[in-house]
Amino acid sequence: MNKIITIGREFGSGGRELAHHLAKELGFAYYDKEIVEEIAKRTNLAQHYVQHIVEHKSAVFFPITTGRTLHTAGSDYMMRQYTEVYSQQANVLREMAEKSDCIIVGRCADYILKDMNPTRIFVYADMQAKIQRCRKNAPEHEHLSDHQMKKMIQKVDKNRAKYYRHYTGQVWGDRENYELCVNTSISPIEDIAHALSHLI
Amino acid sequence: MNKIITIGREFGSGGRELAHHLAKELGFAYYDKEIVEEIAKRTNLAQHYVQHIVEHKSAVFFPITTGRTLHTAGSDYMMRQYTEVYSQQANVLREMAEKSDCIIVGRCADYILKDMNPTRIFVYADMQAKIQRCRKNAPEHEHLSDHQMKKMIQKVDKNRAKYYRHYTGQVWGDRENYELCVNTSISPIEDIAHALSHLI
Repeated sequence: MNKIITIGREFGSGGRELAHHLAKELGFAYYDKEIVEEIAKRTNLAQHYVQHIVEHKSAVFFPITTGRTLHTAGSDYMMRQYTEVYSQQANVLREMAEKSDCIIVGRCADYILKDMNPTRIFVYADMQAKIQRCRKNAPEHEHLSDHQMKKMIQKVDKNRAKYYRHYTGQVWGDRENYELCVNTSISPIEDIAHALSHLI
Repeated sequence: MNKIITIGREFGSGGRELAHHLAKELGFAYYDKEIVEEIAKRTNLAQHYVQHIVEHKSAVFFPITTGRTLHTAGSDYMMRQYTEVYSQQANVLREMAEKSDCIIVGRCADYILKDMNPTRIFVYADMQAKIQRCRKNAPEHEHLSDHQMKKMIQKVDKNRAKYYRHYTGQVWGDRENYELCVNTSISPIEDIAHALSHLI
């Protein structure tokens, strides 16, 4: 069976960067954009729209979890699209994991691929470090204060936690659901990747 | 400033074993029995009694956290002893941490030594692995079923969590209070220690 690493991560903690370095260290495939491209192909939706959905940028998906019903035809249509995207995402993840050793970031991959016995990593960081990393990666026209940045980070993570809870019934970031939780404030990300590659 | 590693751990997860290997890898001092010996000397209490207290084997210490008052003279006397032992423990930890690079297991060391910027590790494991490890380390005359063993592990950890909460106001095992949380079911403990030594 292929070796699978899944990485859950707080926004701004450097989870993608860690995945990238770890994939290089281990010679594993690292899928990211390819997943969205493949979902777009299978659902006939535009890539940027698929991206919008899988990043949970809309709240449409979540009311269902609280048992409320959305009555408008528009919402019904969107709900079907969302469900189709998430269902195709699960298919794509399984197919990729069956192809070769690989690393997958986010997407509830730890849960979707649990039969393949993945090494499940959760990446987090101190708020100040997350703010700094977000500022470094922000588009040039974005001028958020530290306070605004913090609010934004908290909002993204709240949505990730909600989505994870909806899909898995588990608590996002709770150590019980991971083999390893690592605060990236501890060392440069390359060094963390190098150390983790010894463990896996 | 010396490098300090603190290790919080679930009962049966191999936290002490990891500390031992990590100390060897890094050439750090690893204090364990020495702490109890030193507290016994300073408080004029028997070592086995100090051990009993610092392992939270009695519930006397905890009602205070809920604001209840213990009225009997016997309890007052014990409370004073408990407070003295915990206060001396904090002193001993600080003195040891000032002496050299070191690793300390449990004892809220992550919180007590926070000014020294310790690398805080939390060690946990799957229940089945914890039961196996406890069985391996159990005295010969102990014949607990898996169910009894599980209950015992849960009870010890409940007390550890309570004690940690009382002393620090924080949640025991919550990733926010650690740089690294590691499930020892992932790899042999020697390998985990080796990988972590690269990080620290």
